[in-house]
Amino acid sequence: MPDIGKLLWPKSVAVVGASSDTHILRGRVFEVIRGHPFAGEIFPVSRSASEVQGLKAYPSVDALPQPVDLAVLIVPAEFVPAELERCGRAGIKAAVILSSGFAEAGEAGTRMQREITATARRYDMAVEGPNTEGFANIAAALCANFSPAMDKSAGPLAAKRGLGRGQVSIISQSGGLGFAFFDRARPRQLPFRYIVTTGNEAVLEISDFVDYMLDEGGTDVFLLLIEAVKTPEKFRRVAEKALKAGKPLIVRKIGQTEPGRRAVASHTAVLAGSQAAYRAVFERYGLIEGRDFDEMLDIASGFLACGDRMPLGNRVGICTSSGGAGVWMADSCAAAGLEVPVLDDETRATIDVHLPAYATSQNPVDSTAQGVQKLGYAQFARLVARSPSVDGVIVVITARRSAFLEADLPKLKELARESSKPVFMWSYTLPAERTVEILNEAGYPLFTDAQGCARTLRVMAEYRVLRERLPRSPETASRAAGGAKVGAMLAQSSPVLCEYRARPLLAAYGISAHNAGALAHSGEEAAAAAQAADRPVALKVQSGDIPHKTEAGAVALNVSGADAVSAAFDRVLASAKRHAPAARIDGVLVQPMAAPGHEIILGVNRDPTWGLMLMVGLGGVLVEALGDVALAPVPFDHAAARAMIGRLKGSQLLGGYRGSAPADTEALADLMVALSQFAADNADDIAEIDLNPVIVHARGEGVSVVDALIVKRESEPAQHRGAAE
Amino acid sequence: MPDIGKLLWPKSVAVVGASSDTHILRGRVFEVIRGHPFAGEIFPVSRSASEVQGLKAYPSVDALPQPVDLAVLIVPAEFVPAELERCGRAGIKAAVILSSGFAEAGEAGTRMQREITATARRYDMAVEGPNTEGFANIAAALCANFSPAMDKSAGPLAAKRGLGRGQVSIISQSGGLGFAFFDRARPRQLPFRYIVTTGNEAVLEISDFVDYMLDEGGTDVFLLLIEAVKTPEKFRRVAEKALKAGKPLIVRKIGQTEPGRRAVASHTAVLAGSQAAYRAVFERYGLIEGRDFDEMLDIASGFLACGDRMPLGNRVGICTSSGGAGVWMADSCAAAGLEVPVLDDETRATIDVHLPAYATSQNPVDSTAQGVQKLGYAQFARLVARSPSVDGVIVVITARRSAFLEADLPKLKELARESSKPVFMWSYTLPAERTVEILNEAGYPLFTDAQGCARTLRVMAEYRVLRERLPRSPETASRAAGGAKVGAMLAQSSPVLCEYRARPLLAAYGISAHNAGALAHSGEEAAAAAQAADRPVALKVQSGDIPHKTEAGAVALNVSGADAVSAAFDRVLASAKRHAPAARIDGVLVQPMAAPGHEIILGVNRDPTWGLMLMVGLGGVLVEALGDVALAPVPFDHAAARAMIGRLKGSQLLGGYRGSAPADTEALADLMVALSQFAADNADDIAEIDLNPVIVHARGEGVSVVDALIVKRESEPAQHRGAAE
Repeated sequence: MPDIGKLLWPKSVAVVGASSDTHILRGRVFEVIRGHPFAGEIFPVSRSASEVQGLKAYPSVDALPQPVDLAVLIVPAEFVPAELERCGRAGIKAAVILSSGFAEAGEAGTRMQREITATARRYDMAVEGPNTEGFANIAAALCANFSPAMDKSAGPLAAKRGLGRGQVSIISQSGGLGFAFFDRARPRQLPFRYIVTTGNEAVLEISDFVDYMLDEGGTDVFLLLIEAVKTPEKFRRVAEKALKAGKPLIVRKIGQTEPGRRAVASHTAVLAGSQAAYRAVFERYGLIEGRDFDEMLDIASGFLACGDRMPLGNRVGICTSSGGAGVWMADSCAAAGLEVPVLDDETRATIDVHLPAYATSQNPVDSTAQGVQKLGYAQFARLVARSPSVDGVIVVITARRSAFLEADLPKLKELARESSKPVFMWSYTLPAERTVEILNEAGYPLFTDAQGCARTLRVMAEYRVLRERLPRSPETASRAAGGAKVGAMLAQSSPVLCEYRARPLLAAYGISAHNAGALAHSGEEAAAAAQAADRPVALKVQSGDIPHKTEAGAVALNVSGADAVSAAFDRVLASAKRHAPAARIDGVLVQPMAAPGHEIILGVNRDPTWGLMLMVGLGGVLVEALGDVALAPVPFDHAAARAMIGRLKGSQLLGGYRGSAPADTEALADLMVALSQFAADNADDIAEIDLNPVIVHARGEGVSVVDALIVKRESEPAQHRGAAE
Repeated sequence: MPDIGKLLWPKSVAVVGASSDTHILRGRVFEVIRGHPFAGEIFPVSRSASEVQGLKAYPSVDALPQPVDLAVLIVPAEFVPAELERCGRAGIKAAVILSSGFAEAGEAGTRMQREITATARRYDMAVEGPNTEGFANIAAALCANFSPAMDKSAGPLAAKRGLGRGQVSIISQSGGLGFAFFDRARPRQLPFRYIVTTGNEAVLEISDFVDYMLDEGGTDVFLLLIEAVKTPEKFRRVAEKALKAGKPLIVRKIGQTEPGRRAVASHTAVLAGSQAAYRAVFERYGLIEGRDFDEMLDIASGFLACGDRMPLGNRVGICTSSGGAGVWMADSCAAAGLEVPVLDDETRATIDVHLPAYATSQNPVDSTAQGVQKLGYAQFARLVARSPSVDGVIVVITARRSAFLEADLPKLKELARESSKPVFMWSYTLPAERTVEILNEAGYPLFTDAQGCARTLRVMAEYRVLRERLPRSPETASRAAGGAKVGAMLAQSSPVLCEYRARPLLAAYGISAHNAGALAHSGEEAAAAAQAADRPVALKVQSGDIPHKTEAGAVALNVSGADAVSAAFDRVLASAKRHAPAARIDGVLVQPMAAPGHEIILGVNRDPTWGLMLMVGLGGVLVEALGDVALAPVPFDHAAARAMIGRLKGSQLLGGYRGSAPADTEALADLMVALSQFAADNADDIAEIDLNPVIVHARGEGVSVVDALIVKRESEPAQHRGAAE
């Protein structure tokens, strides 16, 4: 593994392709680097000029007066491979390749990008790019990029006084968006450590940078902007490491929609993968999805300010002096899934003595302008924070004028030190610069968006819960007893395993039919099987060539009586043969009908990026018309299964609906865990599993797996399948 | 009707209660007014001081040296009624009552507020408040308020150069939020006309101000912030007037959630009403709901810049030089319901000649940094706007530096003049002040939020469609033939009309059962009716005392054969009597079962604010578990009914789902229109109507109204019913 420290913390830098013309990118880069007080040496390298922007230039990295740590390459694409090779030979261990025209630009570009990868491996070089906008190391004042946001004229790099003790780093595949985060964060005076834009990721990926920064320890909150994860295993490993370390990854995956995916494919030449699968992976590892720049910065500032002081629950107390603004915030809290409970009587009594008669202490606590003038924000917030009914406090302020807060500063600092509950400030006007400074100094995050404020409190509470579940890592689930045997059986079987062939394999993981039934080869055998079942039966043609039996008319349900069963046998068989004349038919499965319950669909499918994902959906219109399903990467544990069920829009139907008995969701969750383990253990051999439907009976009465199908993976790589889907 | 012009455009102002102490509100108000170059005279009125902030003070409005147009009252609540009376006697025709402590503060306050209303009526005075933060008239430089946002120190009131030719006014019930809008809009340099905060609305309501401003003509876009509409009829009339005039009302209703509603009730003493009903009324009159301050300002700036140049459809072309930012915008467009189609070949060819090889013209058109440097934003946007595949263009820019735009300014102005399609600018970095000026001057709205930008284009397209539908106003639907007779029948009937009693009334509006069936009084009569039906029947106990028949076991479905029908008759009757021993039972309705189709629920209910609303929902889990319903105020026309059906999440189920035939949604819409007319014509007498279920058959085969119930309105006022629900 190359040393990313050489890239981010070089003692000396060569800019290959530097120019004196600051209207072109080759000149801009050099101007930006020199515009900041980076302590190391900077050398321009130019084939044509002997001097660049007043500094002596060198014709090649070979000719530099001393070895450098980092080369910044901004020469046309076709020259890059040779130039990188020259850097490697010169002992340079890190490079930023700003040039475009690689994998995003057709076959020739893709070939050149492969050369870059090979050269970097050969010389063990830390390479950022190509097709990147570069990086910035704020503490080192090193801006190896050409972003307008990093112009000297845009102001000092470091915040006057950062919020809390922590620092934020941005790692983005897109250069423009990565530096835009920094640009937008500036008025908030947040303390940044690194901005890294990874471009085409020929060598170093987002995960590599996160990994380095976790080890380094200077970054407390990460903002990630992802177009497509290149190495999923590495991403998952690093994401889990971050969760264990309590360093939140706040992420936005772009290319979520069809036009967005098309654009990602065109400019990075990478398949974006399914958004639902990304979301499932994010949920598994506690990554926090942001909707836009400002919300992501809101969440970052919440974590920075609160450190380990996470809300213990979802209940918020709102302090306001504007009735309307209090209502606005109450709406925002409810929309974010927070509770705004009426405060307990004891707390209300201690507040009421400070309020005028026309104020109210219920929650939102509306002090009116007079009340807050008397109390001050700090004392007001302290009274509300003491209530046992709340887990956090949001104070509605107007940050347009700073004088009132200035006077309150000592008490605000005291409260920030002492309060065990997070206290947030939301201003419904825009803040004065001085207000931002005061609140940063006192240790409070300042929000100007009510939804962002409320959502931050909510995701912090969720993050806390997820981290507490951590020790029982789902990855540690062990291979089921008999699993090895299943692997061997699967290897020997045909490409499509219809129900009666799939059953024995699933049974090894505890997934059994309510009643396996019998395979009949004639109408008489079918009638005999039905008689043994002693209740109405289903007849299902078994053939690896007819995976979709219902569409083929190869199923008959709820049949009773010997004659009817025999006739149904003939009918389904005829229909199957009409539908697929060449199909090899093993027989007809005759099974007693399952007892009634809720129809559930369980499926396992392969995502082109993330591999096997288990899907659960409520049968019928919810899954088919509304796409109401939940996904998770396999394997997972019982708690994760329950969380998936809870994420279904129709999940309340399972909880006992219009007087019907609550469904046995515990048994469903157990089944999902078993299926996820089966899939994980045999991941290399499985393309798809369908248990459709599964009937979930009333609580305590378990589940019936009514149908099963396993499709084996073909020998070609998974990517191709995914791309074609 | 009092003259609001006297309030907003006074020639002279008295401030009653003015103080020299600028740390208290009485001093602040006077300081704020005098801090701006208002051309009229300003008189302090004080009982205790002979001079206020350097001006001679008068002991009472009676003692002023000349009559004034406007009195600003900021004295304790208990003195306000007498002071207002004194103003009335002195011939003052307008007042702003800034004091708090009225309807929001219990019974005594409510009584004083009623006195205010009465006094204002008596003297025909235009009164704003009480419990308001006041207003500002930007053109007159009159700031009759105590908002920190209106401090002299906060900068000049009027924008340097407004976007387009129009102006924006803000009308808000909440003072803090109203002025916060202005505060937040300042960096955008939008041209404001009025900010009015209406407080408790003892006299003038939001609608009155909108009405005045529509007549006055200076306001082109309205931003409204509503806690609760006091006079719904007036609001509807004014909203329709605004829609006809093409002056968009951009609205946020606060108190949408349970804690929000609780807070509204506590600080304005007004019941907030159902959010769904508000939304339905907004939809009817084309009000545009905003999610937060910034989105509402985004939408306002879009309308201001584009004037009558509305997008003709939902298709957007995206110009970008950052691949990632283009993807981000494409995602945002798709999420807002816009299409981002691949451009036509001809347009692509004209663009491709300007782009480097590694750029793409598909859409988003990604020119890369090199491409846009060569083309300029204006030329780039013009090429894309020419495509017949798009209805509008979004240009992704970085507004951090203004030099590039400055150079492009002449071409940008030319494009803004000539383009028939809206062209928006979205900056992924924060804009420099100069950039805002340049784009305002050129006539482009500048967005910094991608979602706000995309949503603005979408709502403009929707607004255009709604206005084109205007001539066929739903309000003009005429009372059905036979309607008068229905009114008389309804007046004479019992409080609850079960199905067989409701049928004849509904039939007068063309709402008929698939087959009305027969009322049986014995098992024999039931069996005879079933035989006449010649297919399976339903049996339903008819009693005004058992409106919920199914829960009472008073229904049997799908019964055939004389014996079974007779037994069912006995069973449902016994069950009904067990359930409600005292019920007066009219008989048992025997009806042939309806042919299969989609189950729909139609209901009419009374909203405490908006009166009768018709609700449509898809039967089963969608309506019961997900609350998937659409509402509209009655009456409405066929197009509105179709739009309601389209708003259902499960509406695609009706369009032909998994091979089933498309449902007869035209017949459903006709039924909804007829029911809405029935409800509107008899609004005073109706509390509730349920047609549940209605079966919608395949296209061309109509609908079957399978059950019907009408509940008459009790004599007590509707508000009380609503409040109790």
